[in-house]
Amino acid sequence: MPIKVEMEKIVSLCRRRGFIFPSSEIYGGLSSCWDYGPLGVELKRNIRQAWWQAVVQERDDMVGLDASILMHPQTWVASGHLEGFADPLVECKSCHLRWRHDDLAGNNCPACGGELTEPHLFNLMFKTSMGPIEEEANVVYLRPETAQGIFVNFQNVLNTTRKRLPFGIAQIGKAFRNEITTGNFIFRSREFEQMEIEFFVKPETDKEWFNYWLEERLDWYVKLGIKKESLRLRQHTKRELAHYARECYDIDYLVPMGWAELEGIANRGDFDLVQHAKYSGKSLNYLDEETKEHIIPYIIEPSAGVDRSALAFLCDAYDEEPDKEEIRVLLHLHPTLAPIKVAVLPLSRREKLVAVAKKIYADLRQNWMVNYDDTQSIGRRYRRQDEIGTPFCVTIDFQSLEDKQATIRERDTMNQIRIPISELKTTLQAKLEGEALFVLPPGGKIWKGGGEE
Amino acid sequence: MPIKVEMEKIVSLCRRRGFIFPSSEIYGGLSSCWDYGPLGVELKRNIRQAWWQAVVQERDDMVGLDASILMHPQTWVASGHLEGFADPLVECKSCHLRWRHDDLAGNNCPACGGELTEPHLFNLMFKTSMGPIEEEANVVYLRPETAQGIFVNFQNVLNTTRKRLPFGIAQIGKAFRNEITTGNFIFRSREFEQMEIEFFVKPETDKEWFNYWLEERLDWYVKLGIKKESLRLRQHTKRELAHYARECYDIDYLVPMGWAELEGIANRGDFDLVQHAKYSGKSLNYLDEETKEHIIPYIIEPSAGVDRSALAFLCDAYDEEPDKEEIRVLLHLHPTLAPIKVAVLPLSRREKLVAVAKKIYADLRQNWMVNYDDTQSIGRRYRRQDEIGTPFCVTIDFQSLEDKQATIRERDTMNQIRIPISELKTTLQAKLEGEALFVLPPGGKIWKGGGEE
Repeated sequence: MPIKVEMEKIVSLCRRRGFIFPSSEIYGGLSSCWDYGPLGVELKRNIRQAWWQAVVQERDDMVGLDASILMHPQTWVASGHLEGFADPLVECKSCHLRWRHDDLAGNNCPACGGELTEPHLFNLMFKTSMGPIEEEANVVYLRPETAQGIFVNFQNVLNTTRKRLPFGIAQIGKAFRNEITTGNFIFRSREFEQMEIEFFVKPETDKEWFNYWLEERLDWYVKLGIKKESLRLRQHTKRELAHYARECYDIDYLVPMGWAELEGIANRGDFDLVQHAKYSGKSLNYLDEETKEHIIPYIIEPSAGVDRSALAFLCDAYDEEPDKEEIRVLLHLHPTLAPIKVAVLPLSRREKLVAVAKKIYADLRQNWMVNYDDTQSIGRRYRRQDEIGTPFCVTIDFQSLEDKQATIRERDTMNQIRIPISELKTTLQAKLEGEALFVLPPGGKIWKGGGEE
Repeated sequence: MPIKVEMEKIVSLCRRRGFIFPSSEIYGGLSSCWDYGPLGVELKRNIRQAWWQAVVQERDDMVGLDASILMHPQTWVASGHLEGFADPLVECKSCHLRWRHDDLAGNNCPACGGELTEPHLFNLMFKTSMGPIEEEANVVYLRPETAQGIFVNFQNVLNTTRKRLPFGIAQIGKAFRNEITTGNFIFRSREFEQMEIEFFVKPETDKEWFNYWLEERLDWYVKLGIKKESLRLRQHTKRELAHYARECYDIDYLVPMGWAELEGIANRGDFDLVQHAKYSGKSLNYLDEETKEHIIPYIIEPSAGVDRSALAFLCDAYDEEPDKEEIRVLLHLHPTLAPIKVAVLPLSRREKLVAVAKKIYADLRQNWMVNYDDTQSIGRRYRRQDEIGTPFCVTIDFQSLEDKQATIRERDTMNQIRIPISELKTTLQAKLEGEALFVLPPGGKIWKGGGEE
């Protein structure tokens, strides 16, 4: 059983070091909306990029899409969201607060003890009005999922890319749900970011592709460093299956409050294309060139969350190590995800050292996000980088001025090697793009850290 | 005077090749919202990345941010948007259609000739309601600009990054304006994406930094291939200056309908921090360590649009060349921006050729977005790639099976070189990351294209 880190530690680290702030914090925050700070935005960018590279760039059967958040309202009639995407709410007859019916044990208001109404359905879509007149005809919704943007573009993509089955369309973007019950930090928020694949297959091959994507997606998290024992696959019961799904598994991650859904992988069958064909009056079928038959493809949907992934990567990377009288807090983030790849640390602020260090800093910045820090003791600076998951620190000392060498110090092992400054970039490149194992380069010295001050 | 391409040609190319589709097209589209298709999403990704690399990664005085779209409503009181971000509208007393007052010449409704009301102010922010009860207390707005997310996080960023003046915060994200008059394709839409910098400086240095950013931002477009003569700087007159601005210039681009704003660079003075300090009751000042004085920094804001940039890059790259009896349509997109960097084209579908070509395709895909095309004649395939701006095509022919060489064909010159397959990746890398000049590598052959079939 993996150790569960307390959520407060993650929240505190995120706040303290600039990963994540409450939205509009100076005004008291906005319920369950979050702003990603300088480190958080880099983590998110890295997650998005790792996903895009794996599911779009490196595959020959996938293309990307970026559909708008505001969609034609008929989309939500066809998808079933306008009618079915609702929570049952009860209202207190005394204080008029509303509550989720299924969250309540008794018949009285938890706030004032008043009598409650019968449950009414409350739609979770955010509603707004487009154009100069606020009237029913102009109502539009913020999309509650990115998926529908893909379905309505199925024929557009088919026509312009000439892809043949099986192929997929991938999209990253914001979605909005007016959830009644939110919380657990960025895990359940009203504004969130999805990474969704809709993979179109021949109907008789759905089971095979469903299994393929289960494995593929699970692998993605593991390759990016999430411990296998922190992940599990959980099959949806018949009762909890969404109306569109023939089969569904969650990839659950062991967040501090227990197992929770990181990604859902659903076999949506032909539900979506049938519905949109029906409501739009457009043909959304596919000509199978072998059989010359028109078919409606089935859809396998791996649907992940950027924010949830970020939280899982942070929780899983979090570690505390005893270090003399102190505790070393560190994030074992995979180098691909680490917000800052390298920190350049001159041992002192002497002009000659700073000149060398700044030159290295400017050079490395061409390739990666790099920090420069010349404050406090070198030990404190290492700790600051450990805490934000920076895989490598480059230290410039007085000897560097003579031997033109610098020290690379590795986050996880605290091992250090000394190499020529001229080889810094290629060495770091190899380490960052490889599995970041700390292999001794020819001619380099290696020693165990620990006596760091 | 540069030649203006007709907008219909750009719209048609975007539609035909999968750059941009009308949003929810199967339902008749949603007024002035657009979906980016497989090529469009890559173009946008490349624009965002080029901007982030230039303004965040490669600088030591800038950090990133990703604030939420939904913000505390008090933000818009402080910013002045709730009161001032409005267009004057008149309503027809007969047919009840509304019109922008300043668009109308006469006093009668352009639709039915009816009498018009006095102008009323109509706020351009999209309004929605958060939480289970739809009432005034729960009203929130979709942000009409990303800038405010930066201002409200000024102290958070200052505290967590320990940056000192001058420094900036950069952000890319969606914003929404319920514009009355939209149009010109993706140039003015209700949902759009901004790339904004808020650069905080000491008050007495504002002019210097304002000029710096004017030049820096103009350079960015030129470096990415926009012709200098398609750009101009235009100073805002006193009358058109926004209420927060002390000075403002637009970087205008010559879109098909004339000169239009691509980016605005404003000196916002201390307006924003003063307003947010006042409305939040929080101190948003900065301790100048030299003078030990608390100051309110001034803000220089270079505010660009992702969609407008995309349109400008497309328009500027568009070209038609006579080619025998046909017209060669091509996009001279900078390699950094081109959606597809390389296309791999086997001369025939013979198994042996395909095997070699697919291996190269799989290898190159590790690094870049790459297309594979084995349909139609090689000349047609070159044209298909020219039209979407692919800088390089790699052709595998029967001789490749013997001499292990492949041909690289360059988009703009149609020149071809033949090099060992083993050197393809490094050669392409050098060309893509350099200025994409077509330099003859040692031992390579060069010849002028043109007789392509």
